[in-house]
Amino acid sequence: MPQKKVTFDDIAKYTNFSKTTISRYFNNPDSLTLKNQEIIAQALIDLDYKENKVAKILASGKTEFIGIIVPNLYLHYYSEILNQILASYERFGYKFLVFAGNANETVERQYIQELLAYNIEGMIVLSHTIPSRELASYNIPIVTIEREDQYTCSVNTDNYMGGVQATSLLYKTNCDVLVHINVNVPESIPAYGRIQGFLDTCKECNIPYELLLKDLGNTYEENRKALEKVAHYLDCKYIGKRKGIFLANDTYANIFLNYLIRLHGSLPDDYRIIGFDNSPISSEAVIPTSTVGQQIDKIADMAMEILVAQMNERKKRKPNLSGEPIHKVITPVLFNRKTTCVSETV
Amino acid sequence: MPQKKVTFDDIAKYTNFSKTTISRYFNNPDSLTLKNQEIIAQALIDLDYKENKVAKILASGKTEFIGIIVPNLYLHYYSEILNQILASYERFGYKFLVFAGNANETVERQYIQELLAYNIEGMIVLSHTIPSRELASYNIPIVTIEREDQYTCSVNTDNYMGGVQATSLLYKTNCDVLVHINVNVPESIPAYGRIQGFLDTCKECNIPYELLLKDLGNTYEENRKALEKVAHYLDCKYIGKRKGIFLANDTYANIFLNYLIRLHGSLPDDYRIIGFDNSPISSEAVIPTSTVGQQIDKIADMAMEILVAQMNERKKRKPNLSGEPIHKVITPVLFNRKTTCVSETV
Repeated sequence: MPQKKVTFDDIAKYTNFSKTTISRYFNNPDSLTLKNQEIIAQALIDLDYKENKVAKILASGKTEFIGIIVPNLYLHYYSEILNQILASYERFGYKFLVFAGNANETVERQYIQELLAYNIEGMIVLSHTIPSRELASYNIPIVTIEREDQYTCSVNTDNYMGGVQATSLLYKTNCDVLVHINVNVPESIPAYGRIQGFLDTCKECNIPYELLLKDLGNTYEENRKALEKVAHYLDCKYIGKRKGIFLANDTYANIFLNYLIRLHGSLPDDYRIIGFDNSPISSEAVIPTSTVGQQIDKIADMAMEILVAQMNERKKRKPNLSGEPIHKVITPVLFNRKTTCVSETV
Repeated sequence: MPQKKVTFDDIAKYTNFSKTTISRYFNNPDSLTLKNQEIIAQALIDLDYKENKVAKILASGKTEFIGIIVPNLYLHYYSEILNQILASYERFGYKFLVFAGNANETVERQYIQELLAYNIEGMIVLSHTIPSRELASYNIPIVTIEREDQYTCSVNTDNYMGGVQATSLLYKTNCDVLVHINVNVPESIPAYGRIQGFLDTCKECNIPYELLLKDLGNTYEENRKALEKVAHYLDCKYIGKRKGIFLANDTYANIFLNYLIRLHGSLPDDYRIIGFDNSPISSEAVIPTSTVGQQIDKIADMAMEILVAQMNERKKRKPNLSGEPIHKVITPVLFNRKTTCVSETV
């Protein structure tokens, strides 16, 4: 059965103190003697008193709530970012209201309106649904991650650097031609940097290259069919040449690798493969696959630091709320695994 | 700059109604004429009024918050369950406060105490950290999923049925010996049913079997090393015999499969493999792997239905809070893929 709520009245009766004294214990404990503090503390245990945070919030305006909007939790990238953000509870004490938008714009807007009505203190947005200009108009601290961010503070991976790292590694493994396989990423999205990094590096190294940007579908099965077609096309076109393949993510890289393994029983020497993200699939693949890792722990930490600083600023009596949005980039890390090993020179 | 909060006072001044009329609009709108309702509704838009849910919660006691405690979000099973539970927002309107415990008992207890102080209405617990007896003592509606559940309502997969399905499928593919590889699951955990289902089916079919329960480590690398040892052991022991291998999850199955592929270039005909969970890795493996799928959407739906019914019961004037905990089991689904294909009979 639910217990009756313990009130200040109950505590006062139990301790023989006045209600004012009990109230002082909660709001200004040092105004009581240590002995009286101990008596009340013991009473709270005896009576199994539960603090009512809602009342406290109403008084202080500090909900200690942060909203997190992710597009989905199916992709490992999002669940890992969420995992890291949730882990900040120990450091900052904020509680997280989590929403997975699944690209439904109407429901996402409705959810955000509800969060605002609950007086959340800030928001971290990973979904691409709502433009940054609209997010900025909510007038609460917001940090976006890996999405369009013109009007909001943001933390992104240095995708350009990642593209350069991946392409340079392939170049060093004695390839005759480099290929980048991606979808048609808009230039406003940070991930576009992967394409630019690939192009600039190929040109700088003066190596033949091919950029394949196409619709690869939205499910694993669609990805698989589209990429097996691409693999077949490249196999025919560059016969006898060593191909360095840079795929936009590790799921794509795994599909490409598996296609070759099923065809040949092992990875042929005329292929080098690298993915992006350092997802579990890259190390759990039949041949551990090279990749560019995003430092998800650092991204999550940086996002929280920017957000907490802004939330704290608003609690000041004269907050300084001017200033341009802050944009931070986090350096990616190269994982050189077995799909980019340099074979013995002949 | 943050806007000043619009108060009932502001709305009253703007519309020339009394504050009582404004209050009636929010609490009992039908006591006003339609015309006056429209005037106030327009004023709310003009003034950009934001509802203050915190005040409303304090009045009604209904926070519309549910706490979710998962062990981690690294394992696909947990992030997919979370994804499905979050999706219930559209149906029920509850908002979710999410915590990933990472097996730190102290922090998890502290977090739950905070949630209780925020007057959350209910809780869904997937972490194994806190015994069900303690959870039940919190006196709020709680549903647990796939963990010890003696004193709490729960929704679990019918793990025994899953064990029977997997073992029966292997038996039908003309194996000489069946092997189940798992960790030493305690009998109080629902997943123990997989072991019991394997044992009972082997005995019933009167087929030779081996049960391998061992510590397989806590990271992917540890899993890989331990399972490659097991694979080598089985390869030597049952030479020339067709081995049907039932692994406790799809990550294990993928490691086992990859070991054989790297050794032989393809899956040898004397091996049949099946995993458990229908994780992405089972269909994304180099050879799409048979598995027993948990119906995660149904598990999440059922958990929410039980929880919502109990939360609604508490809102009645005379709630009926007696009764034993409800335990629901959801039937698993067999996926017969390429690692359990019956070869042509000679």
